[in-house]
Amino acid sequence: MKKIRAAVVGFGNIGRYSLEALEAAEDFEIAGVVRRNPADREGIPAEIPVVGSIKELENVDVAILATPTREVEKHALEILALGINTVDSFDIHTQIPELFASLDKAAREHKAVSVISAGWDPGSDSVIRTLMEAIAPKGVTYTNFGPGRSMGHSVAVKAIDGVRDALSVTIPLGTGIHRRMVYVELEPGAEFEKVAAAVKADPYFVNDETHVFQVESVDALNDVGHGVNMVRKGVSGKTHNQLFEFDMKINNPALTGQVLVACARATMKLTPGAYTMIDIPVVSLLPGDPAYWRAHLV
Amino acid sequence: MKKIRAAVVGFGNIGRYSLEALEAAEDFEIAGVVRRNPADREGIPAEIPVVGSIKELENVDVAILATPTREVEKHALEILALGINTVDSFDIHTQIPELFASLDKAAREHKAVSVISAGWDPGSDSVIRTLMEAIAPKGVTYTNFGPGRSMGHSVAVKAIDGVRDALSVTIPLGTGIHRRMVYVELEPGAEFEKVAAAVKADPYFVNDETHVFQVESVDALNDVGHGVNMVRKGVSGKTHNQLFEFDMKINNPALTGQVLVACARATMKLTPGAYTMIDIPVVSLLPGDPAYWRAHLV
Repeated sequence: MKKIRAAVVGFGNIGRYSLEALEAAEDFEIAGVVRRNPADREGIPAEIPVVGSIKELENVDVAILATPTREVEKHALEILALGINTVDSFDIHTQIPELFASLDKAAREHKAVSVISAGWDPGSDSVIRTLMEAIAPKGVTYTNFGPGRSMGHSVAVKAIDGVRDALSVTIPLGTGIHRRMVYVELEPGAEFEKVAAAVKADPYFVNDETHVFQVESVDALNDVGHGVNMVRKGVSGKTHNQLFEFDMKINNPALTGQVLVACARATMKLTPGAYTMIDIPVVSLLPGDPAYWRAHLV
Repeated sequence: MKKIRAAVVGFGNIGRYSLEALEAAEDFEIAGVVRRNPADREGIPAEIPVVGSIKELENVDVAILATPTREVEKHALEILALGINTVDSFDIHTQIPELFASLDKAAREHKAVSVISAGWDPGSDSVIRTLMEAIAPKGVTYTNFGPGRSMGHSVAVKAIDGVRDALSVTIPLGTGIHRRMVYVELEPGAEFEKVAAAVKADPYFVNDETHVFQVESVDALNDVGHGVNMVRKGVSGKTHNQLFEFDMKINNPALTGQVLVACARATMKLTPGAYTMIDIPVVSLLPGDPAYWRAHLV
């Protein structure tokens, strides 16, 4: 059985966990890690090539984009142009249609496959939300996040001038309403009030109740545990009060890394174009023969 | 927008709820109901044709098979041979691969689509089990059913000689272990001990703790509410203790009818062959443009 050759692009939190998920997946072979400073091999086993450009790696089937969310499109376009499949965990919900259109065009042009927004939300949660909508078409779904660190939100705060380190914790208030607790460690000379205002004005925070706190050490607060609780009460046919609930408590980057690897696998089974996880049969996320899973999981 | 013309084949509990789900779905048109006694129109609106054979209906795109599970294959083969898509909620887990092979061959031969085992378990639960397996590949999933009436189990008991009416209630004992509480109303002259032994020897019951009780009226006990609780504790990549849980409390035939209708819709978007729900992108269960759902649910 020919193994799928995957590269990990970007080597922050998600890159590291994606590499672990690849190491744990028997149907994958690690082509290498692509990062800005290829001399930095910290945490990367000696046998894995580390390079500055994906062009330096041989026969890559699929690239796992573990870059900051706002750099996903640029990297994906470059890599799809090489005819290499991509997966990303792009997480700005409102910009998904735009990214989809852009990568769909590039993927079709270069006969490659791109699975976008393949994390847990957007990602695996999206699959469950869609399923719940289909089996109870009328009703309301509430997605409640946390308590836990939001990687996307924390990265957004870190990008603000004067911030040395940041942590954004999501607190579920029920019915899809969240509080954002933001802890910032400032650069010397940075003005806290200015930073706090910038956080509150950021697209990631502008719609939520946001509290910003200055702390001496963000590292002392760090915990990558997270959770979600999705609830739908709806109508199947003409029958009301159908009740559904999905709950998880997880290590956030570990789950994202695993979802990325599962979707990297799926890219090998799809026709050229872009996909989100709701566009993919769930069985394609698993290795081997679908008949095996039909016998064991259906 | 051309509507999907659907027929309902069989008009027991599931047939009735499937009809309601069709009436509630704006992208469907009801071609008619097919039942053994077409003169019996009880509960069927006057404008809906009721016939004895699907051949008497015009331009049927898809047939919803609401027949007893053991008659599904026979009906599906006949209907697929007419080039009409089928969906069923065949629920004997161990026989799914066999049914799949049989209907896959027939569907390909006649350029039709067949979605099998499209209820809630097998069915929507299967999608969630598969997703949980993909995002935490090592670990154990427990599916806990009930408390609630199992239609398949009740029908199996009703088929036993001497049984006038029956109700099988599933009690979850945790970690996927269930007790079956079976209530039987006997025909005059039937021997309870013989019936009880036949129930316990039936493939539906042989692996579970089963208790059989004789009652005066099964009708007085009837309630079609049901539930499921699925739990997975597993490993994402190399990270242990990832916790997932799905829970629902539902009207059983209403949910089955709705799932059947959602899968009937999906048949219109798939290439010829057989599918289970894990082989279908979840977005195909919903009406309209996938781009709409990508913008709203992903």
